[in-house]
Amino acid sequence: MKVGVADTTFATVDLFAFVEEVFKVSNKSIVIERYTVPGIKDLPVACKILFEKYGCDICLALGMPGDKPIDKQCAHEASLGLQQVQLLCSKHILEVFVHMDESPDADTLFNVVKNRASKHALNALALLEGKDSLRPWAGLGRRQGFADAGPLRRK
Amino acid sequence: MKVGVADTTFATVDLFAFVEEVFKVSNKSIVIERYTVPGIKDLPVACKILFEKYGCDICLALGMPGDKPIDKQCAHEASLGLQQVQLLCSKHILEVFVHMDESPDADTLFNVVKNRASKHALNALALLEGKDSLRPWAGLGRRQGFADAGPLRRK
Amino acid sequence: MKVGVADTTFATVDLFAFVEEVFKVSNKSIVIERYTVPGIKDLPVACKILFEKYGCDICLALGMPGDKPIDKQCAHEASLGLQQVQLLCSKHILEVFVHMDESPDADTLFNVVKNRASKHALNALALLEGKDSLRPWAGLGRRQGFADAGPLRRK
Amino acid sequence: MKVGVADTTFATVDLFAFVEEVFKVSNKSIVIERYTVPGIKDLPVACKILFEKYGCDICLALGMPGDKPIDKQCAHEASLGLQQVQLLCSKHILEVFVHMDESPDADTLFNVVKNRASKHALNALALLEGKDSLRPWAGLGRRQGFADAGPLRRK
Amino acid sequence: MKVGVADTTFATVDLFAFVEEVFKVSNKSIVIERYTVPGIKDLPVACKILFEKYGCDICLALGMPGDKPIDKQCAHEASLGLQQVQLLCSKHILEVFVHMDESPDADTLFNVVKNRASKHALNALALLEGKDSLRPWAGLGRRQGFADAGPLRRK
Repeated sequence: MKVGVADTTFATVDLFAFVEEVFKVSNKSIVIERYTVPGIKDLPVACKILFEKYGCDICLALGMPGDKPIDKQCAHEASLGLQQVQLLCSKHILEVFVHMDESPDADTLFNVVKNRASKHALNALALLEGKDSLRPWAGLGRRQGFADAGPLRRK
Repeated sequence: MKVGVADTTFATVDLFAFVEEVFKVSNKSIVIERYTVPGIKDLPVACKILFEKYGCDICLALGMPGDKPIDKQCAHEASLGLQQVQLLCSKHILEVFVHMDESPDADTLFNVVKNRASKHALNALALLEGKDSLRPWAGLGRRQGFADAGPLRRK
Repeated sequence: MKVGVADTTFATVDLFAFVEEVFKVSNKSIVIERYTVPGIKDLPVACKILFEKYGCDICLALGMPGDKPIDKQCAHEASLGLQQVQLLCSKHILEVFVHMDESPDADTLFNVVKNRASKHALNALALLEGKDSLRPWAGLGRRQGFADAGPLRRK
Repeated sequence: MKVGVADTTFATVDLFAFVEEVFKVSNKSIVIERYTVPGIKDLPVACKILFEKYGCDICLALGMPGDKPIDKQCAHEASLGLQQVQLLCSKHILEVFVHMDESPDADTLFNVVKNRASKHALNALALLEGKDSLRPWAGLGRRQGFADAGPLRRK
Repeated sequence: MKVGVADTTFATVDLFAFVEEVFKVSNKSIVIERYTVPGIKDLPVACKILFEKYGCDICLALGMPGDKPIDKQCAHEASLGLQQVQLLCSKHILEVFVHMDESPDADTLFNVVKNRASKHALNALALLEGKDSLRPWAGLGRRQGFADAGPLRRK
């Protein structure tokens, strides 16, 4: 299976390294195609090219939107573009975006990035197996970037 | 008839169970195809695949968006994606989203989830019968998740 | 000519009745195809089906969005979907949405609904005649739901 | 060359008259196809029909959005629709929208309308000549509706 | 290789000059096709025409959105259009937008424009070489318009 990974020069952490590590540890025979673009708004067409020209079966779109209002809008536009690519190609793109203001502390932010990228790399591997592979965790409050929320606790 | 049901590991309640229960009780000969994805933004392409690859006639997209502004934006992006899939495939997708902040109380939230998922499962069954089957309730203020509003009461 | 009318079970007034009345009074030979769906976000694909499967020449999309922020967002998503259907099919859809908070008074709200639905039914009849039939009123400040604003009054 | 002009009955000024006047004065052999619709959200499909059915080479979309939040949202939806039509047809649509709240004074508002419609009619004529005709004014701070801003004045 | 550059008469600085200078200095054999339009909302279709009719391999979309809320919305609509063109053509468009309110000082604003346009011209040259050419800078916090942020500094 071929996994496309698109990342940016704008991000302040190398998210790709975490994804690559997960794939290595998985011992699955995964071929990675990496595409580096300037910013998150360049990710959608990069993913489309990874699907069309490089024959990827699934993509991960890695990015770190800034903390200003304009950055939030850019992330929204990038997300809508990623939606469109998925629908044009009928293939999944897992969006791994970490907003620069998710934590004011650099160490914490780094851990959010690592946690989210790693978990979504695992999600990508699961989705490659088909529509049933994530079923055991349906409705269980899984989170990427932070600890799982877990299922709703009723009284 | 084949009904596609896409759900998420992000949700903290198993919405699928309520949909399945409605279909069982209905005594209709319904085949369910289930597709579990990480989060709500993965639902649109899952529904597209349920239509294209699994031949579903209608889909239900089940999700529980979080309570932060970024979650609201994700839900918006997912909804726009679900719109596009419907228009690309000319088939209905009933969006069953319960926002985590619709109630601060876990028991109430659970009931909203159950009520909305169950009622939309019934709506799906009705829409499978064609464009006229919901006509008797047109303009009568039906609600999913809560009690019906009922028709406007003029003085 | 065939007019598609899509309406919802969510609305608290039967908007369809006002549209039907206008068509009857018009004495024009109009065939109506009606499609009832749960809510406004189900209207776009219903209109697409009315165009594609039922051969309608124009559609009216009737709905009453709620008064909460999430309802406003739903209306926005539905409107974008209605835009897309029009462009995919190259045919008009007149959006007849009355927001539940356009008036706090039930009688007034009812009159807004009646006025807007009736006037847009007339607009649909005009558009069926072609691109020139509304020309006499261009720039004259016509309104649906309320009294016309009329042309700008300069000093 | 054929220019499509779509306008609305909602507007309170006849924007078309200003466009027509510019074309007359230009002494160019321009054929105008006019399409009048109820409101701004009906403009995108009207422009698409002007391109497809009437063979227009460029369109002007004339409208006057109201001053309420819902009107702003309608204008946004109309603008997105106009974007899509341009991309589907690979032809320009010049959006000539004057918001009712651009001036509280009727005379001023009228002048904004006249200025913007007239200047965009000239822009349409220029774009019909090709991609280079507006080059002499690139980066010079031209404005429609008001006086030009002119180029940035550095110290 | 052919690079399309779309710019506007609305901008108050000639962004094109900075792009052209970078291409000259690069000593690469680049053919530039320039397309000047009135405003940023006219850029998407201009880029589409640059791809389709002029055979460009990549585009730069240069614009300077104003500082009012309506200008922010226009920029958002233009950005969404640019996303769509990229996905329709499977080619990159680098969006080089400088908002008029990024600095109240004309000299500073001019420098933001120069820095951003020049750096994105270099990004365009890199992307023309393929998906790997920007890889050495992935995750290193590069910025256009201002100094690079550099990689996240952990304690």
